[in-house]
Amino acid sequence: MQYRMSELFLRTLRENPADAEVASHSLLIRAGYLRRAASGGYTWLPLGLMVLQKVTEIVREEMNKAGFQEVHFPALLPREPYEATNRWTEYGPALFRLQDRRGADYLLAPTHEEMFTLLVKDLYSSYKDLPLSLYQIQTKYRDEARPRAGLLRGREFIMKDSYSFDLDDEGLVVSYQKHRDAYQKVFERLVIDYVIVSAQSGAMGGSASEEFLAPADAGEDTYVETEGGAANVEAIQIKPAQSISITDLPAAQVHDTPDTATIEALVNFCNQNESLKRSNQWTAADTLKNVLMRLVSQDGTTSVLAIGIPGDREVDMRRLEAAVYPEIVTPFTDEDFAKYPTLVKGYIGPDALGIKSKSKIEYLVDPRVVSGTSWITGANRTGKHVFGLVMGRDFNPDGQIDVADVRIGDECVVPAGKVIRLARGIEVGHIFQLGRKYAQALDLKVLNENGEQVVVTMGSYGIGVTRAVAVIAEQHHDERGLRWPRTVTPADVHLVIAGKDEALAIAANQLADQLNAQRLSVLIDDRVGVSVGVKFNDAELIGIPTVVVIGKKYAEGLVEVRDRFTGAVDDVLLSELVAKVKQLH
Amino acid sequence: MQYRMSELFLRTLRENPADAEVASHSLLIRAGYLRRAASGGYTWLPLGLMVLQKVTEIVREEMNKAGFQEVHFPALLPREPYEATNRWTEYGPALFRLQDRRGADYLLAPTHEEMFTLLVKDLYSSYKDLPLSLYQIQTKYRDEARPRAGLLRGREFIMKDSYSFDLDDEGLVVSYQKHRDAYQKVFERLVIDYVIVSAQSGAMGGSASEEFLAPADAGEDTYVETEGGAANVEAIQIKPAQSISITDLPAAQVHDTPDTATIEALVNFCNQNESLKRSNQWTAADTLKNVLMRLVSQDGTTSVLAIGIPGDREVDMRRLEAAVYPEIVTPFTDEDFAKYPTLVKGYIGPDALGIKSKSKIEYLVDPRVVSGTSWITGANRTGKHVFGLVMGRDFNPDGQIDVADVRIGDECVVPAGKVIRLARGIEVGHIFQLGRKYAQALDLKVLNENGEQVVVTMGSYGIGVTRAVAVIAEQHHDERGLRWPRTVTPADVHLVIAGKDEALAIAANQLADQLNAQRLSVLIDDRVGVSVGVKFNDAELIGIPTVVVIGKKYAEGLVEVRDRFTGAVDDVLLSELVAKVKQLH
Repeated sequence: MQYRMSELFLRTLRENPADAEVASHSLLIRAGYLRRAASGGYTWLPLGLMVLQKVTEIVREEMNKAGFQEVHFPALLPREPYEATNRWTEYGPALFRLQDRRGADYLLAPTHEEMFTLLVKDLYSSYKDLPLSLYQIQTKYRDEARPRAGLLRGREFIMKDSYSFDLDDEGLVVSYQKHRDAYQKVFERLVIDYVIVSAQSGAMGGSASEEFLAPADAGEDTYVETEGGAANVEAIQIKPAQSISITDLPAAQVHDTPDTATIEALVNFCNQNESLKRSNQWTAADTLKNVLMRLVSQDGTTSVLAIGIPGDREVDMRRLEAAVYPEIVTPFTDEDFAKYPTLVKGYIGPDALGIKSKSKIEYLVDPRVVSGTSWITGANRTGKHVFGLVMGRDFNPDGQIDVADVRIGDECVVPAGKVIRLARGIEVGHIFQLGRKYAQALDLKVLNENGEQVVVTMGSYGIGVTRAVAVIAEQHHDERGLRWPRTVTPADVHLVIAGKDEALAIAANQLADQLNAQRLSVLIDDRVGVSVGVKFNDAELIGIPTVVVIGKKYAEGLVEVRDRFTGAVDDVLLSELVAKVKQLH
Repeated sequence: MQYRMSELFLRTLRENPADAEVASHSLLIRAGYLRRAASGGYTWLPLGLMVLQKVTEIVREEMNKAGFQEVHFPALLPREPYEATNRWTEYGPALFRLQDRRGADYLLAPTHEEMFTLLVKDLYSSYKDLPLSLYQIQTKYRDEARPRAGLLRGREFIMKDSYSFDLDDEGLVVSYQKHRDAYQKVFERLVIDYVIVSAQSGAMGGSASEEFLAPADAGEDTYVETEGGAANVEAIQIKPAQSISITDLPAAQVHDTPDTATIEALVNFCNQNESLKRSNQWTAADTLKNVLMRLVSQDGTTSVLAIGIPGDREVDMRRLEAAVYPEIVTPFTDEDFAKYPTLVKGYIGPDALGIKSKSKIEYLVDPRVVSGTSWITGANRTGKHVFGLVMGRDFNPDGQIDVADVRIGDECVVPAGKVIRLARGIEVGHIFQLGRKYAQALDLKVLNENGEQVVVTMGSYGIGVTRAVAVIAEQHHDERGLRWPRTVTPADVHLVIAGKDEALAIAANQLADQLNAQRLSVLIDDRVGVSVGVKFNDAELIGIPTVVVIGKKYAEGLVEVRDRFTGAVDDVLLSELVAKVKQLH
């Protein structure tokens, strides 16, 4: 294919769009790949669509190679199947709902678990039909509260979603691994740098789930890297501290600590008060902070949870939400305090907590709070703290909860080892052992070898296809513009005619034909009345990996080849150019 | 590619689905190409998606060859642009409307004129940028009152919609012709039999518009074929009758005709009454029927229209609606009659009609009612008709209106000649010179060569992509199943293993590899425990054009080749098979 800048539907922009927060968004708009059409909705211009189609085709090829079969569902779906799994309600305001002319309820599907389950139920009925993996590449809708960052968080986007169907758990593990392998091939071909992170804490169901995160500052996901692997913050497990011998520990003592309702105030007071001072300074890590939360269960009933963590840590809300799922976390208000007279705000101590205490509030502590550890903590009286309160001697919580913020140096069990790095990433893929939830809700069963009806077990697997384009742009650009990997570039060669001489244009056209003959596509900058400087700037912005300049040295039989990645500029004999470019691919 | 029936996600059905009214719907479901997912929404199964992807690719290739550039818009769009052109309201209940979480109005786009207009306005500003043709292949939504016939009238469907942008009318004519040519190439490659019919009467704006109709009994469009071309009923123009000399015509006479408020009763009465009888029987064609309609204009004001047509014709509502567009036709009720004391229901005659009459009702007549023609018509008194009322002598209407039903033998001006055939067709393409309506409403202007701002003129062009799949199925099937043209078949060869001998399976796999090496795709029926008869039935139902049977004669080095179109069965040497199949493509 040949495309001509003189005809291509394209305008490059010098300025960043006002609403662009991240590089991929800004560059894709400026280089003429995308235009905003609606809040969270983008129009693909010709160059952008070429990239999107290449990305789509790579995803499709790898799915087909893995033996997964492609189907295609409508996006506009009736309410009933989503009612059966309760997702019509559970999905909340993120679901686009509408009515047809007869007043029947419809939705714009955010994912298709229900429909795939029903389709397989419709066609298949025997263990002989399994295993089966189906996928689609389809437009999805999600009414995001805050669409942002261009393609990274939109309201209309393209996903590849797959679903596997197996007779038993062993089968599911095999299907899961096949998808994992296929995803790795996809991201390698897309030249996306990624980490696979364990995505889900045991509390959420225990089945395996991993995310493919593309490290990028623009990412919304935080993940943790240890010597033994990576995980998102919801999925890591901190190594519990070793318990210490209680023998010989001094007895606990209550001291006056006026106006110390915060950890900071408490630590300052301890370090300044003559009777409390010690040779090495007290720190927040010496204190035990008790945090209260109200939990709302799915049936609407509420309960209170007290969390004891070292005072130098904070409760990480994402970790807490994952740990108590499906219960929802809400704040513990002054009104709530009023219901518990034994709780003294700012001075709550372990004595007032626990299911056996007067308050009957469940009390769970951080894995660093183990038997033999000694703490400064609230004495349940205003202006008083207790010093040297020893766990296992002076108090016994109801259990452990691992929801403190994660820091470099923390020891993890999952993934094993010390935390080396906290980083941000963009979720570009997600693989998930769903289990029997949807099959159960929608009654998908098959006959097994013994003629018994068994519920099928499923996996679900997603790749953000439009998002992948943004991720590639995010990972491959510099201050001058985009830099497309050869697998997804809109054209293989950007051919700049640098001069007004008619001979240059003729030579450029011949060269383009020769490149085409080798199945290399060419974008020719044949614009008249546009300076060479502007052409070069546009070429850098557009980001085709190989730029060939046909200009001054053409008389000597030479063209200039610029590598958009390395920045290298070489003079090449015109007669050798095609072979040289072909070598790169 | 190789697909195996033992693994393919497919179940063929023996019975027609209950809701299938047309062959394409029934066969696509039975052969495992499609499943119903919602009212007017279908899921594409693997075989169906292969056909859809081939059809899509042919459309895309021909658009690209013609120099049109592909873009892609969201389907979920904000209300504002559609408000600016009044389509938000005009589209009525066929538009899916919804609100996002903030209560902002959105729609699921049925077509994208507004968005394309705004996009071009956004990027382009000079005559140098034109001509331009853009297209997309995209999912569209229309809340059909009665979704029916499977893919033929759905609520979610794929269209290719193009839009051309030109500086002037001459440019538009060129762009229109380029699309017309490209469409012909598309339908030829899809092996769709089609007629191009003139689609729009002058009353709707006068600019050219043509439909590509695929003749099929299942079609919803009626069109007319004459010696000189084809048109849909809204677009044809009947040749007005020649006026006749008025001299020597007998004077008009009023007669008593009790209980003759219908044409049938009137004609019977005339033929039975001794004083009215004549040698050749009176027929309905001798009478002039006056039909009243109420018209509602866009601003809501109403007016009355009287239409005089020969009594053997009916007013064709589609022709009338097109003729009075944008006014809307509503019935003339008894309540309306009460407002016009000079109108006697069942006995209305020309005397009571016309803008100069007491009623002031505009009176238009059929092109067959010309000067010198003589009629039996209402005498404006109950139970009385006037005989021999001569147009041009006894009455003069306000003008002509061509809205009677069309019949074989009618003489047309557009398209010229006698009506040969009335037929039904499926609209599979539509090309339309839009003109400046959208550019005006959304202020799309460019600078011309003289530096003046001029409004751009546009064309819009559509192909029903999912519908085209149904049309191909509709035009290419027999009582045993589908018959895909080679350009769109899901696989090139259907290879049936007809026997349990292991050697047959091995040979089939080798053959499939050899066919693949020649870029021919193969569906292998490798099912174990399925009879040869069932395999043959499935092969005929699925409709791959070449069926190769590897069975009994394999020992002699022969395979059987069945042509799904001709029904021919040939024994072919295994060694010659690949070359022979390749020849067909």
